[in-house]
Order: sequence, then C-alpha cells, then structure tokens
Amino acid sequence: MTPVEPNPPFVTSRRGLLLGAVAAVPALSLFGSPAWAGDAPADHDIDDGSSMTEMDHGSTGMGGSDHAGFPTGSVPADRAGIDPTAILRDFDKGKVSTLPGGQTLREWEITAIDREFEIAPGVIFSGWTYNGRIPGPTLWAQEGDALRIHFTNASPHPHTMHFHGVHTAEMDGTPGVGPGNIAPGATFTYEFDAAPFGTHLYHCHTSPLAVHIAKGLYGGFIIEPKAGREPADDEMVMVMNGYNTDGGDNNEFYSVNGLPFHFMDNPVKVKKGALVRIHLINVLEYDPINSFHIHANFFHYYPTGTMLAPSEFTDTVVQAQGQRGMLELRFPYVGRYMFHAHKTEFAELGWMGFFEVTE
Amino acid sequence: MTPVEPNPPFVTSRRGLLLGAVAAVPALSLFGSPAWAGDAPADHDIDDGSSMTEMDHGSTGMGGSDHAGFPTGSVPADRAGIDPTAILRDFDKGKVSTLPGGQTLREWEITAIDREFEIAPGVIFSGWTYNGRIPGPTLWAQEGDALRIHFTNASPHPHTMHFHGVHTAEMDGTPGVGPGNIAPGATFTYEFDAAPFGTHLYHCHTSPLAVHIAKGLYGGFIIEPKAGREPADDEMVMVMNGYNTDGGDNNEFYSVNGLPFHFMDNPVKVKKGALVRIHLINVLEYDPINSFHIHANFFHYYPTGTMLAPSEFTDTVVQAQGQRGMLELRFPYVGRYMFHAHKTEFAELGWMGFFEVTE
Amino acid sequence: MTPVEPNPPFVTSRRGLLLGAVAAVPALSLFGSPAWAGDAPADHDIDDGSSMTEMDHGSTGMGGSDHAGFPTGSVPADRAGIDPTAILRDFDKGKVSTLPGGQTLREWEITAIDREFEIAPGVIFSGWTYNGRIPGPTLWAQEGDALRIHFTNASPHPHTMHFHGVHTAEMDGTPGVGPGNIAPGATFTYEFDAAPFGTHLYHCHTSPLAVHIAKGLYGGFIIEPKAGREPADDEMVMVMNGYNTDGGDNNEFYSVNGLPFHFMDNPVKVKKGALVRIHLINVLEYDPINSFHIHANFFHYYPTGTMLAPSEFTDTVVQAQGQRGMLELRFPYVGRYMFHAHKTEFAELGWMGFFEVTE
Repeated sequence: MTPVEPNPPFVTSRRGLLLGAVAAVPALSLFGSPAWAGDAPADHDIDDGSSMTEMDHGSTGMGGSDHAGFPTGSVPADRAGIDPTAILRDFDKGKVSTLPGGQTLREWEITAIDREFEIAPGVIFSGWTYNGRIPGPTLWAQEGDALRIHFTNASPHPHTMHFHGVHTAEMDGTPGVGPGNIAPGATFTYEFDAAPFGTHLYHCHTSPLAVHIAKGLYGGFIIEPKAGREPADDEMVMVMNGYNTDGGDNNEFYSVNGLPFHFMDNPVKVKKGALVRIHLINVLEYDPINSFHIHANFFHYYPTGTMLAPSEFTDTVVQAQGQRGMLELRFPYVGRYMFHAHKTEFAELGWMGFFEVTE
Repeated sequence: MTPVEPNPPFVTSRRGLLLGAVAAVPALSLFGSPAWAGDAPADHDIDDGSSMTEMDHGSTGMGGSDHAGFPTGSVPADRAGIDPTAILRDFDKGKVSTLPGGQTLREWEITAIDREFEIAPGVIFSGWTYNGRIPGPTLWAQEGDALRIHFTNASPHPHTMHFHGVHTAEMDGTPGVGPGNIAPGATFTYEFDAAPFGTHLYHCHTSPLAVHIAKGLYGGFIIEPKAGREPADDEMVMVMNGYNTDGGDNNEFYSVNGLPFHFMDNPVKVKKGALVRIHLINVLEYDPINSFHIHANFFHYYPTGTMLAPSEFTDTVVQAQGQRGMLELRFPYVGRYMFHAHKTEFAELGWMGFFEVTE
Repeated sequence: MTPVEPNPPFVTSRRGLLLGAVAAVPALSLFGSPAWAGDAPADHDIDDGSSMTEMDHGSTGMGGSDHAGFPTGSVPADRAGIDPTAILRDFDKGKVSTLPGGQTLREWEITAIDREFEIAPGVIFSGWTYNGRIPGPTLWAQEGDALRIHFTNASPHPHTMHFHGVHTAEMDGTPGVGPGNIAPGATFTYEFDAAPFGTHLYHCHTSPLAVHIAKGLYGGFIIEPKAGREPADDEMVMVMNGYNTDGGDNNEFYSVNGLPFHFMDNPVKVKKGALVRIHLINVLEYDPINSFHIHANFFHYYPTGTMLAPSEFTDTVVQAQGQRGMLELRFPYVGRYMFHAHKTEFAELGWMGFFEVTE
C-alpha cells in the first residue's frame, strides 16, 4: 500500500475524477510507450495497471481496505450522515392499527427537510431529504392495507410525494393536480390502499423535476403480496442513486443506499445458502440507465416485483430511472463477492461493493 | 399565473433550454444560499422550486394550462401542422379488396414530401415526412393480409420505406438491396404479407441513417393477430420521437406523436374502467433509450406486441430505438393522470402529458 | 462508385468522424437550402442523401461493396489481424479428458498478450488480448463439466480472468480476492464447474476496469444445458464491442467480433430455413447500451440463455454491458439481409453487416 493521503484530492467534475485517477500514476516508463493507439496524445497516458494501489485515491484508512486496485475510502457512516448498511434492512412498517371494517391501517410521518451530507472525503452535498435520509425511509405495507402518509414540508422549497402505485389523482403528488405542490410549512396526508404488490418507489414530483429527484427526495415503497411469498432469510433494499455536485448535468458520484464505496469497506454480510431477497430500485438522474451485476452467482429477477414467478435468471440487469425489481439468490460458497454497476464508470465512481458470505 | 409572454424566448440548444428555464427564476434570496454542494459556483444556482410558474416558459395561453410548475404551452395543432390527438386513434387500414384466392389485400399510397412544422412557439422544423405527417400514418393490417404500399418520392432526396416485419430482401427498403434508394420523383411498390402480428414500425433506411430517421420519416405498423385479441374499448398509438433543431447530435425537443407538450394542454380523454390498448413505439434518434411512465396506475406490457400474454406488469418501461410494445390498462378512478418519459430531461423538454379519465 | 481513396481520411474523434462523413459531400446546391430547421448555421448543412456513394469514406475496394449509401471498406481480415468470420463459429471446447469420477474435464491455455490491430484503414489499435484475439476465444462447455483455465500473463500489465458464472471467491478473478491480479509473467489456473447453462462471458477485472475491458480483454463463455437444446443447424457467437482510439471516454468504432464493417464486405452466409442460433454478448465500454436489429425477420430471444423457453419474439433487442442472450431464427427467404445496432451512430461507425441467405 502507498502512504495514506489524509486529504485525497477529490476533483468534483466527473471527467476530472477519472483523469485524476489516471494522473495519480507516477510513471509509465517501466513498460515503455503508451498503450493506446498510435495517435493518442501523451497526456492521455493511462494507468497500465501496474501501480494498482495508486488508484486508491480515497483509501484514507477510515474504513480499511485490502482490495488492492479498487478505489475505496468511503466516508464512515456516522461522519457522512448516511448509513447504507442500516438502510439495507430498515423496512419502515409504520404505525399499525385496525380500521373499523377490519382493514389494517399503516401511518407514517414524513418530513421534507434540507440536510448536508459528506458523501466523499471533503465533499459536502446539500441534500433535500425525506426524514433526513438519502434515500428516504423504505415504506413497507401489505397489499390491501390502508396507508396514510402524513407529509410535512419543513424545507424552504415546495415539494410533493409521488408514489408509484395505484391511487386517485388527488393523492398523486403531482403539481397542478389536487393539492399539487405542498408549500414550505404546509402539510398534507396522502391516503390510498396498497396496490399492486411489488417493489416500488416514491419521489418528489415538483418542477424542475430532475433537481427535486437528484437532490435526494426518493425512497423505496414495498408492497408485500397478500398471499405472501416464500419467506426470505434475509431481505434488503438497494436504492441506486447518484450525486450531481457541481450543478452540471452529470453525476460525479454513484452509490447504492447513498454512500459511494460504502459496501467496499463494509461488505453486506449474508449467510451461505440463505434465501436473499433484494429490492433493487433505480432513481438515478441524468444518466439513461443503471445496472446491477453480481459476481460468481446468479439471481432470479422479478421486474417491478409484481409477479410471483421470475422472468429471468441472470447476473446482470439494467434499469432505467423509475424501474425496479426484486432479486432472489442464494450464495453457494463462503467468501467475498463483488456487486456493482456493470456500467464501469459508475462502479469506479462509487457504485461497487462486496457481499461477505459466511457459514 | 405569470403574465403571458407573447414570444417565449426559446433557446434552441438543449443545454440552453435547461439553463434558460433556470435563469427565468428571478430571485433565490428568499431562501438564502444555493442548495448545491459547497463548491457550486454562484451561476449554477438552481430553481429552488418556489417560483414554479416561472417555469412555464412556453405558457403562451394558447392551450391553456393550470398545471403550475410544469412547462407547457404547446403550439396549437393547426398552427403546428401536427395533431397528436388525431394521430392517437388514426389507424389507416388502407384500401381493402379481396384477391382471387380469398386473401385480403390492403393498399396504401405513401408519398415522401418535405414539410415545415412549428414544433414549439417560434421553432420551425424542416421535416422529411411520409404523407406530410410526423409521425407518418399508422398502417394497420391483420396477420396474413397481402399488403401493397405504393411509395412515391416527391421529395428532393432519395428515401426508402423499411418495414420491421417479415419480407423478402427486395422489399426491405435497404440501400443497395433490390431497388435500394428510391430516387426523387421515382416510385416503388413494397409488397409482402403481414407477419408476424405485433406492434411494429417503418422508417426510411437511406444513409446517413440518423438524419433520415430524425427528420421525421417513421410511422407505426400494427399487425393484428388473426385470432384477434380481447377487444379494446380504446386503442391508440404513441410514437415517441425527438427533434434535433440545430444539426448537432442531440435533441432539443421530445414528444409523443410529434408535438412537444401537446398532451399537457390537450389531455388524452379516456373512460374509467375501459380497456385501453396503447401501441408504444420508440423512434428516438441520438439518445440511447426512451421510457414511458404512467402515474397512479399500472399496465400489462407485451414487448413488440408479438405474444398473446403479457410479460410484465409495471408503470415504467424502457425502449431503445426500434423497440416497441403494447400496453393494456384500465383506469380505476376519474381524474387527470400524467404520463411521461421517466428520463426527466425528455419530460421537461416536451415528452409529458395527461390522461383525463371520466365516467 | 466514386474513385477509390487509397488513404481514406479517418478522423479519430467520434464527432470528427461524423462530421467528416458530412463534409465529404461536395455540394448541396442541387436541392437548395439546407434541410435543417431555419436556425441551423450553414456549417451544419447535412448530407441530403443525393450523393450516397460519397458516404463510402472507407470504400477502398479492399473488401468490395455494392451497397451504395453505406460506409463499408473494412480492413481485410489478414491485414487487420482480426477475422470476425472465423470467430463467428469458432467454439473452443478445450482439451477434453475424463476425471476419475467420470466428470468431463475441459482445459484451456489462455495467455494475455499485447497486440496491435488495424481496425480501420490506417487506424492501429494497441490491443490487450487473450490469446492474441479481440474478442478472445469463445470457451464452450457443457453444464457440470469441470473447467480448468490455465492463465498466463505474458503482457506487461497485471490482469485477471473474471468469469460470469458460478464459482468460489478464489476463482473470481477479482483484485484483492484470492490470487487477485495476476502479475506480468505469473500464471494461475481458474478452476470451477460449468454452471449455470447459458450464454455468458469473461473479461479482465483489473482496475482501471474500463480500460482493461475496452482494450480487448473479453470473450464469450457458452455453457450448453446438460439436457441439450434442439440441435441448431448453424450456431454462432457475436460479441459486440467498441474501440476508444484517442484515450477519451467515447468509442470511435463499433463492431461485431472485432472488425468494423467486416460483415458488410463479408456477409454471414446462412441457409434458408436452417435453425440459426446466435449467442449475442455485449462488452461495449463507455456507451450505456448496445442493440441488435435484424432486417426482414424476427428471432426468439433467451435473455442470458439461461431458460429453455424464449421470453420474447422480436427483431430488436437492447443489452447493457455484461448482458447477453441467445437468439434463434430461421430465414424464410434467400437474399441479403442487414443486421446492425439500432443505435444509428454505432451502425454508422462500424456495427452493421449482412446475412446472405442461400438455398
């Protein structure tokens, strides 16, 4: 390992980041001429891979890492203000009661509030959040439950909660329809029955829409089928997002559950042979698609989670924004297995992690 | 509503459009410092969402709009030269006769002709069209019918008609194969049987291909299964396209059925509970994918429309260029429901609209 | 045809290439004013399509071409150092023996070695390869076989072989796990059983990952189901890739099986009515998606090849990087039929070809 850099020189443009990584390689002379085709200018010399640990531009030792060659160095969860590991299995089932007719009622208090996060060493992101989290709480219900989401806008901007699900226009969280934008200081209760079952999401729908989503106003919304599913041994939610830190139309960082490289330093711990169910949700703004690849294993994929039988058995799926699905898999062997976007750029800018499988 | 701007300052670069929208916000001082991360330069200040109606950069009052916060202001159909609402349910079944052997023969006259359209207030697009329309006519046939498309090139450029369907090489509308390019002033009759059933498309295949597609030479091609389907109460075609107005390699406008924001000002009228069948076709050039999201509802999706059973139940699908599919849904509640690309940029540049559901 | 240009002026930036093609059109005066919308500056005048053969910027006569209007002019396979036609049906089944317990053992010798290719006339690409090939050898096994891949790194950079398949962490070819990066001059034997059946791939997983993939370190990995499939009359592999020739973050060339435009000049020869099975694999770096469209025909699609029944019947599929699938089709008519990315830019930069169907 190279000496730890206490203040890694994070460049906040995406292009800068990539070139920065390359520039960190001190010398290519060992192997002679640049590897690119003949016409490549010298300043495009690339990492020849021989100095892998130089790539660890963020390996501040905070999280520790022995994965020579991969950039890690996530900000510790408590300092970042985001704990992807905690978010992973945190299904918020609301305050539960029973309505006179026997229907289960679930109620949540959701507050929009601005909050800063340290998403990478020294990089502060001024987030717009639901309940102070990016992503927001994962709301969980059973098909047919009555849902009441008491929304308070404690931020200085108008916002809404738009659910991907079935409901009336009034409850759609769309500007110009029903209550429309909820003004700063105002409240509104979204109320509808949970349908259809599946892996869904909610997000702000205030205009300019790209900004209201990209700033952090999104979360998972899981509806369990009434008939139930095969019980999972381990159920989790993974929200794929990005961070636009310079106001351009790109993301400079990518993650699952809000913190780049977190799962490199804090692998997802699972048991060999256990049925693992993952609700995978893509909220990524600016980029056309996102993807999920798991190493050395395959999963059954249920697009949108709305069917009881899987439609595919694969190790790589693609999702456009707003798409989501359910993955089911069992790890046959112990050990550490990567998962990451198979859009390499996203992986190298934070969207990569490990599963750690034990007996 | 803010006062109507008689000549909305449309900027024709995509980036300009987005920044223009942002620049339209007069003051951010109300809420203090910019919302972006600390390193964002002041000129990247974004709309804080507090002055939503300022976003209505195109709200000329022509179509009327009460959707505070969304850009609308589509050009009226008669002035634009494109009527997406008329296109929606306009299935052209051709001139029908019966061949000696009993086979149904359908014939169409299709003419390539250049035509200008006002796709946004003050923005003239010099289109290349089939029959003066963007998108071209939706050709409808039943599986097994004999089809004859009498093509006349009345434009000053060579063109073809390339059908997504099964046919001989001669009838493929590909340069260098069979008749190849049809020269200005020339004619050719494409002739083949309708197969396979599904939601298809046709487009020009003359090189440079991106230009010949992007200029407007495409349309829907629907083949009904011989055995029929469950009768729909309401059947429609939605062609997702874009407009490159500055000769670059981007689109500055996006739409369904040719006119940005049209369905914001002229919602698609449907009946509560009715079976709505939508043939969704993506012809978008330059961008890698397009997508369709419906609010507050879900649909069954039939990729390419070639199966009798749906493969997915969702509210968001993605299509690359040339992909298409059939959606079936019923609206359970009255009211106004958005549909739009869940690629936010496309939505904000025109690809958004409303369904209006009544009893 | 226009006179042959002995040294076609290939521009190595993607944008330059596209503009170069346009600039090659000598005069637009025949048809008057530019076709773009009114505000297009004069220097964006586009090819009006009337001088199609001018587009043949690469038609050096080397491969011959009668497809007026399409850029062709692939480098002959022997000069390029890549023969996509040979790669098409070259399934490497390894050295086969039987283990004491009766299990079939397959062994391969794979060597990483740097090698230059002439991917377009005058354009030398300094590749990183497995066994001197781009794409690398297509490894073929039957479900349940024992596999041993003896890997030697004869290149000056560390590399790995990461298989999309099921195996232990030790055998995953991931830096920091098990043997991790295999140093220049070192060897390692990857060893695991073939599972699950399907159309898979392998690639280098050394960081920086985008570079190690984009330089050429990938290949197909086909696992036949134990129960077998309907025997194909003709089985082939098509690896969709790109070439970044200037060290930027774009590709300037695209291909199937490594050589742009090759199958325009050397059509894939198939028999009418035969069952053609294609293993389609996308390894394209930098771009978010790739796609495959076949003309005048439809195929059954098996995503990842892991099911025995197809999930779709279409003529156009999309794949993100790492995605792959199996196509099955029969050509009903003789003749020449295009196949290409329905991402037009990729097609125009090399990812297009012909099937030639004979009795």
